[in-house]
Amino acid sequence: MRPHFRKDILSSNWVIVSDLRSKRPNDYKDHNVKCPFCPGNEDETPPSIFSFPDEKKWILRVVPNRYPAVEFYNDEFFENEGIYKKEYLNGVHEIVIESPKHNLKIYQIKHYDKVLFIFAERIKELYKLNGVKHVIVFRNYGAKAGASLRHPHSQIIALPLLPVRIEDELTHFFKYKSKNKKCLICDIIKSEIEINKRVLFITKNFIAFNPFASRFNFEVMIAPINHEMHYWKEKNFEELKEVLDFVFIRLDKCIDDLSYNLVIHTAPSNCKDFHWHIEILPKLAMPAGFEWGSGFFINSISPEKACEILKKGKRLKIY
Amino acid sequence: MRPHFRKDILSSNWVIVSDLRSKRPNDYKDHNVKCPFCPGNEDETPPSIFSFPDEKKWILRVVPNRYPAVEFYNDEFFENEGIYKKEYLNGVHEIVIESPKHNLKIYQIKHYDKVLFIFAERIKELYKLNGVKHVIVFRNYGAKAGASLRHPHSQIIALPLLPVRIEDELTHFFKYKSKNKKCLICDIIKSEIEINKRVLFITKNFIAFNPFASRFNFEVMIAPINHEMHYWKEKNFEELKEVLDFVFIRLDKCIDDLSYNLVIHTAPSNCKDFHWHIEILPKLAMPAGFEWGSGFFINSISPEKACEILKKGKRLKIY
Repeated sequence: MRPHFRKDILSSNWVIVSDLRSKRPNDYKDHNVKCPFCPGNEDETPPSIFSFPDEKKWILRVVPNRYPAVEFYNDEFFENEGIYKKEYLNGVHEIVIESPKHNLKIYQIKHYDKVLFIFAERIKELYKLNGVKHVIVFRNYGAKAGASLRHPHSQIIALPLLPVRIEDELTHFFKYKSKNKKCLICDIIKSEIEINKRVLFITKNFIAFNPFASRFNFEVMIAPINHEMHYWKEKNFEELKEVLDFVFIRLDKCIDDLSYNLVIHTAPSNCKDFHWHIEILPKLAMPAGFEWGSGFFINSISPEKACEILKKGKRLKIY
Repeated sequence: MRPHFRKDILSSNWVIVSDLRSKRPNDYKDHNVKCPFCPGNEDETPPSIFSFPDEKKWILRVVPNRYPAVEFYNDEFFENEGIYKKEYLNGVHEIVIESPKHNLKIYQIKHYDKVLFIFAERIKELYKLNGVKHVIVFRNYGAKAGASLRHPHSQIIALPLLPVRIEDELTHFFKYKSKNKKCLICDIIKSEIEINKRVLFITKNFIAFNPFASRFNFEVMIAPINHEMHYWKEKNFEELKEVLDFVFIRLDKCIDDLSYNLVIHTAPSNCKDFHWHIEILPKLAMPAGFEWGSGFFINSISPEKACEILKKGKRLKIY
């Protein structure tokens, strides 16, 4: 079955049905899995799109996902089923293998600035493809965060539809802009610096803070201090790596067995303005019936307290 | 710190900050927890709101949540913080202890029809409170579904704000109604019966099916076949119990170590129309960076296949 999009006509949310995904290996559940991302096992992935510094002695590889959520076919079509519609739309799903070593934390990968640069290069390339509305980069770490392989890697998905979360952010971004003639995210950053209760780390060009309305315990946002809509236009990847290192060293210091999702939100194609940012979403408490049923979130650690704990580097005893 | 609501001004989503929640016991993580829901430990919960058949020999108890996400104070106020606002709004958080026995599955609780009836009674009561916009009932089962206690229980939260998911459903419900002069959920049910690829179980008054755009593997929706907006007006709780029994016996048969969330969506106060339904959301694969970052979902088992597996009662080997 070719992966396709289904709209839930009651919530208007999109679901990608891709049974290929159920075949992907999981080394959290099955300890005998031969890691497809380790050197020597290059045949376990499709041929690489990019290798650094070269195919043989790579420290960084980009490959098509062997178990993609979306695929590029060039043809797009619909299929009706009663009041429903299945939409066969094109997309791209790539993997960035971030290191040849199997078991490193993000801050143990010394060339992570190059990983961050490759994200930018791939985003720029994928936006050139016909019909790509948005490119999302994400990193899953730990079983509680839905990761299936331990080997350090991130994923890039180019989508033919604007993700609802990006759509929501753009709606409020442009509402704020038309009312205040200013960028909402620039103003959030200014507010955070003024209030100074949730700022974790500031460098010349970046800020890391615990957002006022964090959905998750210890949630962190990283953004460029100066207005920039496109992640792929970013130049300061060494400095961005420094910020990520600070954040993840602290998270690891405070939280036992940290699991998290990291997401890059950058401007979609054909978009006039935005302010790119990174969301880091640690998974301590699991979202439950209330969250899934209402769409609201309960956060049991205020972001101010999370910031205090992270800055002090105290070991958390609650969870 | 009193629990309060914070709006994420970028996504416009609401987060409840409640540090009380971090103090709640968790018998999945700490095996020495004295179960507050077992007979003899009644002092571990606030005094009961309702007991059946009586306080001493109860088989069913409703109590206020000792670690509430929301509380009822009678006063409501705001607090400004830069561009943000903290909203101190009233709510109610109750627990339904469904059985005196510590370790039962939902279909092993013989009086579950009475549990379902008590949900209706509490929903009706809570809607009488000033400022209550919506009442949501949910049940978390298993660590992967965010449950913190094994003892069979459900939770009821009365909210001063309309949950985004209910708002979304109402928006599309009324759009469909004004266009087609019909109920969207009645039409979904009709479609499912016609297509007959996702229907799990039908009784005189209820249908259980795997929704066309299921977000989660083996997701199930249960709804009354005849149009009814309010769960609390329901009369056929014995029959509804039969449907739940069928669904959960099958889910347990097919899935190892089943974790799930169950949610009741009923009409909010001051609402002219709706069609109540139950969502059952098993947690096999964990939602990851793609889901949290985009708001879209990837489902690796098509609902048609899920329905086939559940009907055959085959043991699932994929996960």
